[in-house]
Amino acid sequence: MTHLLIIGGSDAGISAALRARELDQNVDVTIVVADSFPNFSICGIPFYLSGEVPDWRHLAHRTAEEITQTGVKLLLNHTATIIDPAQKRVKVVNTQGQEQWLTYDQLVIGTGAVSIKPRIQGLDLPGVFLLHSMDDSFAVHQYLTNHIPQSAVIVGGGYIGLEMADALTHRGIAVTVVEHSPTVMKTVDPTLGKLIAEELKRHSIEVANGIEIKTIEQVGTQLKVSGSDSFHKTTDMVLVAVGVNPLTNLAESAGLKTGIRGAIQVNRKMETNVPDIYAAGDCIETWHRLLSEYVYLPLGTTAHKQGRIAGENAVGGNQEFAGTLGTQVVKIFDLAVARTGLRDSEAQNAGFKPLTIEFETWDHKVYYPGAKKLRILVTGDSHTGRLLGAQIAGHYQGEVAKRIDIFATALFHSMKVDELSELDLSYTPPLSSPWDPVQMSAQAWVKHWTKSYS
Amino acid sequence: MTHLLIIGGSDAGISAALRARELDQNVDVTIVVADSFPNFSICGIPFYLSGEVPDWRHLAHRTAEEITQTGVKLLLNHTATIIDPAQKRVKVVNTQGQEQWLTYDQLVIGTGAVSIKPRIQGLDLPGVFLLHSMDDSFAVHQYLTNHIPQSAVIVGGGYIGLEMADALTHRGIAVTVVEHSPTVMKTVDPTLGKLIAEELKRHSIEVANGIEIKTIEQVGTQLKVSGSDSFHKTTDMVLVAVGVNPLTNLAESAGLKTGIRGAIQVNRKMETNVPDIYAAGDCIETWHRLLSEYVYLPLGTTAHKQGRIAGENAVGGNQEFAGTLGTQVVKIFDLAVARTGLRDSEAQNAGFKPLTIEFETWDHKVYYPGAKKLRILVTGDSHTGRLLGAQIAGHYQGEVAKRIDIFATALFHSMKVDELSELDLSYTPPLSSPWDPVQMSAQAWVKHWTKSYS
Repeated sequence: MTHLLIIGGSDAGISAALRARELDQNVDVTIVVADSFPNFSICGIPFYLSGEVPDWRHLAHRTAEEITQTGVKLLLNHTATIIDPAQKRVKVVNTQGQEQWLTYDQLVIGTGAVSIKPRIQGLDLPGVFLLHSMDDSFAVHQYLTNHIPQSAVIVGGGYIGLEMADALTHRGIAVTVVEHSPTVMKTVDPTLGKLIAEELKRHSIEVANGIEIKTIEQVGTQLKVSGSDSFHKTTDMVLVAVGVNPLTNLAESAGLKTGIRGAIQVNRKMETNVPDIYAAGDCIETWHRLLSEYVYLPLGTTAHKQGRIAGENAVGGNQEFAGTLGTQVVKIFDLAVARTGLRDSEAQNAGFKPLTIEFETWDHKVYYPGAKKLRILVTGDSHTGRLLGAQIAGHYQGEVAKRIDIFATALFHSMKVDELSELDLSYTPPLSSPWDPVQMSAQAWVKHWTKSYS
Repeated sequence: MTHLLIIGGSDAGISAALRARELDQNVDVTIVVADSFPNFSICGIPFYLSGEVPDWRHLAHRTAEEITQTGVKLLLNHTATIIDPAQKRVKVVNTQGQEQWLTYDQLVIGTGAVSIKPRIQGLDLPGVFLLHSMDDSFAVHQYLTNHIPQSAVIVGGGYIGLEMADALTHRGIAVTVVEHSPTVMKTVDPTLGKLIAEELKRHSIEVANGIEIKTIEQVGTQLKVSGSDSFHKTTDMVLVAVGVNPLTNLAESAGLKTGIRGAIQVNRKMETNVPDIYAAGDCIETWHRLLSEYVYLPLGTTAHKQGRIAGENAVGGNQEFAGTLGTQVVKIFDLAVARTGLRDSEAQNAGFKPLTIEFETWDHKVYYPGAKKLRILVTGDSHTGRLLGAQIAGHYQGEVAKRIDIFATALFHSMKVDELSELDLSYTPPLSSPWDPVQMSAQAWVKHWTKSYS
């Protein structure tokens, strides 16, 4: 019997385990999980803290029982401390300090990522939180319940910071978002970042851009947050969400090659440089389909795909990861903001000659009630006419998320922008237009391109 | 100066005109329009009659002024009566009976379709309506306003019949839908047809299936509708919506070849068999991308695409129509029902060996409030694993329409069902799952296929 050992009980690890068992009922699969929360939806934490998900147990994609029913063994509250590739074994320790060695035929590493701790004085003060694990979120939840804070400063205007701004506002807390970039959500173009800032302000959130936070100090029962440009804010709690780094010390000490930001290097089969060791998810470098190179781009969707491939290959499969396009969407209050592929600046850096246009239209025929505006950015290569990326912002009921997916599917197939008009997309007046907004924006790009480059 | 003449002022004709002028500012473009309503959204008529669009003028995709501002000439209230290809001219007559000949260098025919008049006695009685043109809809509107009917029978449970059932219910009219097939909306599988029937019944609409209507008689101020299986219903008005046929008598008499159901035959450049005459929209046979053959499948989206290609080629372009996949969506009350590609029965008829699975899931993570159920049917070829089609039914806010478009874009690129898992689709808990429902259903198909065929 083959022994498949998996380190990490989040998206990548669980996907690998389930896929392996699905394909081979004879493989023995064990997952080493550092806490008691296997297969939890980390992306759901903000909605638990907002109160919209009353019971944290509901954040589980699957319960522990559902996982073990597939034949997968869960070793909860165990942390892997040593990988010994020579003897194909892994040392684990439980919360009581008891150690044991587990042997493997195939090993999948899915240790994920950890929150970046920025250089801010006072990060360890009570009332100051990082947010990544379920334990983090219990700590925040307890603080919210026991202290009933009236105000909060969120350091970091990325998608987790903004989801938390929404979540805390939902609880009636006065929120200030501090972001060091000139606009929030710097993963999209500033023009959309400004739309997001407007949505935040519409919900009474203060937004401070271009500010670097330096210190957090205890002042009575409150916290004083100070930063560049004489920024000062006294608040009841502070959340720091400035991104994550891959968690790879274990892998590194076992001789696994790492690269960008310390992420584990894998090939498209999710194999590391060490035989019989695979890695997947937020701890690895990810193949980018458009850039044709490895990047560090941790996303839950990607972790699921990579874990599934690692699990399949670990039981004799031969799958290759098709690559990420960085497709993502976030909902902030009523606004959905989505992107796929490359933005203009990213495309330039990659050596393309991008042209980006901005286009505004309605999600459906405006004569039918309830039409929502969509702001669409299309980026294409001015040399070849090839689609390079798209960004959409609009009301979340305007099918923003699945419209970016039409772009993502087009990108997957290396379509030219002009070819998007050939797609046979669905239409009824309450839900679209005879040319879907995706196609209207593509046509606007082509018109601009033809004018500018012919 | 080139003279481009276009017969028909609906989707195909207008698209051809606008595209020609966009590409060539020197071409002289004239559109012959049979009524005073160029570029009206015929698909919007139900929403005008429901009262949701209070002013019929808003149904115009563009106003006549907006069209003429592009340099396109509109000859309203003129009907083309003769095409003379030898002398490259068209005879038109206006509503006063005045005739004239118009010459052309290139001609585009976009005469569209007409409602099928089924063999039912009493179709000409007052209170009985067909519904296709703006004039039809004014007649219905006037009847609704003047007679304030309390009840209506709709003959035909296709998408126009069902949209009108929704529309008249919105006005407080008690509606009965009569459909000769065993389920309504026979363009989707019966399992989804039953969901639609449930939605209709939830809104107090009576649904009579398997009934062939034979006669409509005047009984006092009411109408008695009778059919097979002793069906009888006394009602205040009757709407007949049993489909359309291509309107091609003009084209036929000019020597244009016609085929399926009398539709004009074209190649993928939208050229007819007669030099310098193009045709597009509901009056032609349409190239089906999956079947690799011509079909009659009139849709507004297709008419726009074909018109655009005809217009481009008429001014010297060389575009080919990429083909239809029959992608469509309809919203009935809160339910959106969509399809793309081939259903199981259609795939069988086309010589594939289809396998179809039915899958149910939520539009987004169920822990986040407001999750809606989606019912998804995936059809793939059991020989090759290739995706052949998909159908989705669910709450219209569950991004049903744009999810079918992900399938449509995958179909456009001849993807295998298994490959859908490789697509990098967007995710956030309020809007999807780490594997989008599209991918979950594809994985369910693959699982079933692997079990059944290995």
